[in-house]
This record gives sequence, structure tokens and C-alpha cells, in this order.
Amino acid sequence: MKINISPIIWCDTYLQLLDQRVLPGNECYIDYRNVASISQAIKDMVVRGAPAIGISAAFGIALASRDRFQADPKTWKSDIESDLRLLAQSRPTAVNLFWAIDRMRKVIAMIEGDPFPALVSEAQAIMDEDIAANQRMGDFGAELITEPCCVLTHCNAGALATGGYGTALGVIRSAHRDGKIERVYADETRPWLQGARLTAWEMVKENIPVSLLSDSAAAHLMKSGKVKWVIVGSDRIAANGDVANKIGTYMLAVLARRHGVKFMVVAPVSTVDMNTRCGDEIPIEQRPASEVLCLAGVNIAAQGAEAWNPAFDVTPAELVDAIVTERGVVLQPDTEKMMAMMKKHQ
Amino acid sequence: MKINISPIIWCDTYLQLLDQRVLPGNECYIDYRNVASISQAIKDMVVRGAPAIGISAAFGIALASRDRFQADPKTWKSDIESDLRLLAQSRPTAVNLFWAIDRMRKVIAMIEGDPFPALVSEAQAIMDEDIAANQRMGDFGAELITEPCCVLTHCNAGALATGGYGTALGVIRSAHRDGKIERVYADETRPWLQGARLTAWEMVKENIPVSLLSDSAAAHLMKSGKVKWVIVGSDRIAANGDVANKIGTYMLAVLARRHGVKFMVVAPVSTVDMNTRCGDEIPIEQRPASEVLCLAGVNIAAQGAEAWNPAFDVTPAELVDAIVTERGVVLQPDTEKMMAMMKKHQ
Repeated sequence: MKINISPIIWCDTYLQLLDQRVLPGNECYIDYRNVASISQAIKDMVVRGAPAIGISAAFGIALASRDRFQADPKTWKSDIESDLRLLAQSRPTAVNLFWAIDRMRKVIAMIEGDPFPALVSEAQAIMDEDIAANQRMGDFGAELITEPCCVLTHCNAGALATGGYGTALGVIRSAHRDGKIERVYADETRPWLQGARLTAWEMVKENIPVSLLSDSAAAHLMKSGKVKWVIVGSDRIAANGDVANKIGTYMLAVLARRHGVKFMVVAPVSTVDMNTRCGDEIPIEQRPASEVLCLAGVNIAAQGAEAWNPAFDVTPAELVDAIVTERGVVLQPDTEKMMAMMKKHQ
Repeated sequence: MKINISPIIWCDTYLQLLDQRVLPGNECYIDYRNVASISQAIKDMVVRGAPAIGISAAFGIALASRDRFQADPKTWKSDIESDLRLLAQSRPTAVNLFWAIDRMRKVIAMIEGDPFPALVSEAQAIMDEDIAANQRMGDFGAELITEPCCVLTHCNAGALATGGYGTALGVIRSAHRDGKIERVYADETRPWLQGARLTAWEMVKENIPVSLLSDSAAAHLMKSGKVKWVIVGSDRIAANGDVANKIGTYMLAVLARRHGVKFMVVAPVSTVDMNTRCGDEIPIEQRPASEVLCLAGVNIAAQGAEAWNPAFDVTPAELVDAIVTERGVVLQPDTEKMMAMMKKHQ
């Protein structure tokens, strides 16, 4: 399957990230040559989306290993620990970040001699596996959609949020290929407008009809009977099937249940954190007030107003109809079903 | 009670409207000297908010009567009909507009000779009564809040949406005076950002603590237990208590019910339309796609994306805990209770 959009490009000795802060107006790649700048890029949301953050961190670790090994080939394995900590602190909610760090750490433990080739290769494997997982999830999710319909998505769980193809938008891509998507309604997704800027951009590139709406209009949209499915990604799924995702996802889940709209979460197993028992244990990142008070650098709010800006919320498993991973579909998720899915081989 | 903010000022021979499109950055009044320009100001949202639209239309009719009477004192009463139609077409949802036109039409029917003084006087009465009604509603609504708490509001149902003092924000003003408001959470209210631009501005002017949030964060806010009441205005209330208000209000009502948060609607009886049996009969204005696709004149969305931009939604009476008018409070509204309230004398 063709991958049209690559947010992360490895160039042998450095990493290129598509600057998602300036899309769709500018399609601009920035070069990253060390782990500190990649950590900052994650924090600043040059790259965002749970799987894409994990992949970027993995390449960051490869670059760190080169620098640490060059500085001192004897102590690099202990020296690199501070780099891993730095990456781990860049975003608190997306578990793929910690998953990727752990996976790279396992390779680090086994390396003898120059670590760079092995760690680049592992980071590349994480990216390749992510794209393959997305394509599998796309097909699994598309099978759940039984007839042509319109769907609603939130934020951007697309190619841009992953190695390519996307999670929620991967399902939409596969379902559109199968003739099942009449139109995508995309929440604009304040404050970062990932829906307006990124999801709409991906859909236009794929010639999938897309209509943006103000986030709060989703209730009226569902009441009008216009959509049959809400399809979203996730930043962390707890062991019981509770789902952390972009702020506003929980709103959609409550509304979907009231209106008989089905609610699908699409995420690779690297997003599932079986060590987090339930959603209450997931840390919710609070982002700067300026993201709400300003837009495109312009102050939109009255001077003196404060802002409350949680970046994520948690949707309880009881409101989720299906969790789709590359290992299959979990309907009406609970701890038992999630454990069974995690034990499956891909 | 002091009125700090006057969005509508009558200057003997012309009308001044505070241009709400450029607040809070600029506090700028525009002069209006004829009915056509006032109709356009309503359409363009220089003035917005159901009661303020009604008041502005009333002054527009006074100006029209002067022009029509000067042009032909014999035929002005039939000539002015096209002006009334023009005003009626400016916004379709807010019923206060039609209510004000009807009220002015009754005076027109009785006038002999120069109509201008009598119609200016009637428009002034509509405005004065609106402010007095808001102050009564403020006190009625504040009584419903039994202990100090935080509240959530949507859009701007403040002084700016009325002759002064406000409906939902009138209740918040009165409750704050009584020591019952710890903090106002204000939805920023896309696409026009009335919350960020107007409600925050009013709250800062009154020294009432205010925190803005992205509209879709309201679900997470309620889940965190931070607010006890949602308090909103209305553009039209049907005979059965169904409430049309700014897009997103219905979302809040669904969320409030799920989280045990009380839902209060504050509007004068001129907003109640006993000729509309239920919310399904209320016309919902669709506004231009550009309001969603652009912000502050800048295109924020991907080129080629469409937008779905309903300006209002309808909240069913079953989700409303209290409708507050200047004639009193209707708890758990239905047609019978609404009829009883409408028959009360103020």
C-alpha cells in the first residue's frame, strides 16, 4: 500500500520531522541531529501523536548512543540514561514514548561495541512495524463498518501521528477504499486545531470528502443522524480498556452513547499500558494557558482572563464499542478481554 | 444597580452599537442612521444576542418610520412593511427579533401624525424593560444557587447580548454579589469565540475570576467535579421548554445530565415563543463555512476542506433543570408549566 505522507524521515545520520505546527500552510521538514533537540521537538509539538512520538524518541536514542559512545565508549550505557530521562519527560500522557524507550533500552543492554547501527536499525524497525500495524488495523476497523456512512473523527490520528497511514485515519482510509465512507466530519480540535490543520489536509490529499465543524457542534451533528461511527486514536489505553486521548474525546463518547452512534478507538498495542489498571491512573498533561488564550500568535481573549488547558481526557471503557489493535478487535472492552488480546501473536 | 456595559446607545437621532466583532481588542461604537444598516449590523453580528437584536431592530424601526414618513406621510405605514421584512430576515433563530417587530407594529397601527417620537419611546421602553428584566432574572437565578461554587457558561449571554446586565451573566453577577460564585469557567465558544472575547471581557471588568477552556474540555471539567451549574442564555424557547441557543449548548446539557451538574437557562419572556410547540420547529441558522475555516481573517484549515457551521442547536426540555424568566423560575419545564409562567404578571 502506498504511503503518501511521511512525518518522520531517517536520513542515515540525522532525523527529519515534518513541522506539524505550520501545516497546512507550509510543508516544511526540520533536521534534528541530537537527542536534546528531538526531545524539545516532542515537547513543542513539531511532532505529535502517540506512535510518532515513540518513533521519534527511538531515533533520538540512536543519535544519543552515537554521541555518548563517541564521548566515552566505556561509560556510554550509563551516560545515556540521562538522555532517556530527558525524552521521558517531554510528554507525560502518551505511553508509546515509554514503550519505545523501554524497547531501545533492551537493545542497549545487549550491545557490544559501536551502538549506533543496531539502535538505528531498531528505531527503523519500530517505524516499519508501526506502519504495518496501521495497515492491519485499518483493515480490521474497516470490517466493523458494515455499510456506507459518514463518520466523525477528532484531532489527528492519521499518517502524521504515526510512521504513516494512521490509526483512526488508517481505518478511514481502508474503509474509503472499500466504498464505505461517504464523508468524514472532522472536529477542528481546539486549541491546536489538529482537525482543521492536519486531518483535513490528509483527507484532501486522499480525495476523501471532509467537513470541518466546531468541536461543540458534534452533539448537534449526532442528533441530526449524520454519522454512524466516531473513530479516534489514543495516547494510552489502560488495562481495563479506559482510553486517554486528545481533550474532547470523552465528550464525543458521552454524546455517541446518547445518540446510538458507535465509538471505535484505533491504536497499536504499544499504546496499551497493562501496568495502568484504569484511566484514573493516567497522568493528564496540562499545557500552557497561552494555547487557549492565543491563536496563530494573536491574543484572542480578554486581558486578565485565565485558561484551563488539559491536553487529554479519559473515556471510560463502558463508552467504548470497539478497541482495534494490530492483534485484532476487542468489543466492549474490559480487563479480561484486553489481557486476552495482548497475549495474541500478531 | 449600576450598568457598566452598554452595547446599544440611542443618541436622539441615531443608534450607536458597540462593534462586538472587534472586542476585546477594540472598544469601538459604530453609528447607524437607517434601518438597512441596522439590519446589516444584525446579520454581520456587530450586535448579537437575542435581546440585543430585538432592541436594535426596534430602534431600526423607529428610524425607518422617520424616513418613510418624511418620504410620504400618507403611505408610510404600508411602505415600512418592507423594512420590517428586511429586519425579520436578518437572523432566523432568535425570536426576540420577531417579538420586537410585532410589538413595534402594534404601536405603528395606533399612530397618527409623525411616528418617530412614539416609536423611539417604544424602542427605549423595550430596552429599559429588558435591563429591568435581567436584574430580576439575576436575582431569581442566584437564589437557585444554594452554596458557593464554580459555574460554567457558554457563548456570551451577558450585558453585551442584552440592553445591559445580561441573562446568564446577570445571574452570575447577582450570585457573585451574594458570594456564591468562586470562579466562572467560560467555554471559548467557537467559531466566533464569544466566550473568549466577550464573556471573559465582561467577567474581568467585574473582577469575577474567569477561566477559559476549549469547548470540548467541558466534559473533562464536569467529570473533575469542578462545576455545579451550567448557566446559559437562549435565542428561542419553545412552548414545551425546548431551548435553542448557541451551538454547543446541547452538548453541555447532555454532559451536565451525565455528571449530575444542574442546567439553568436564563431568558426574558420575549425569548419564549408559545407558537413554537417544540424545538424541532425552530429554524437553525447555517452560517458561512468561512467562520470555521478562518480565524481572524487567516485561513486555518487545509485548502479544499468544507465546513458544517450551524449557529445554534436545540436542547430538549428534559435536560433543563430550570428556566429563569423575569416572571419567575420554571423547574423541569414542560408545556403546562411554561403556559402557567407566561400567564403570570411580572
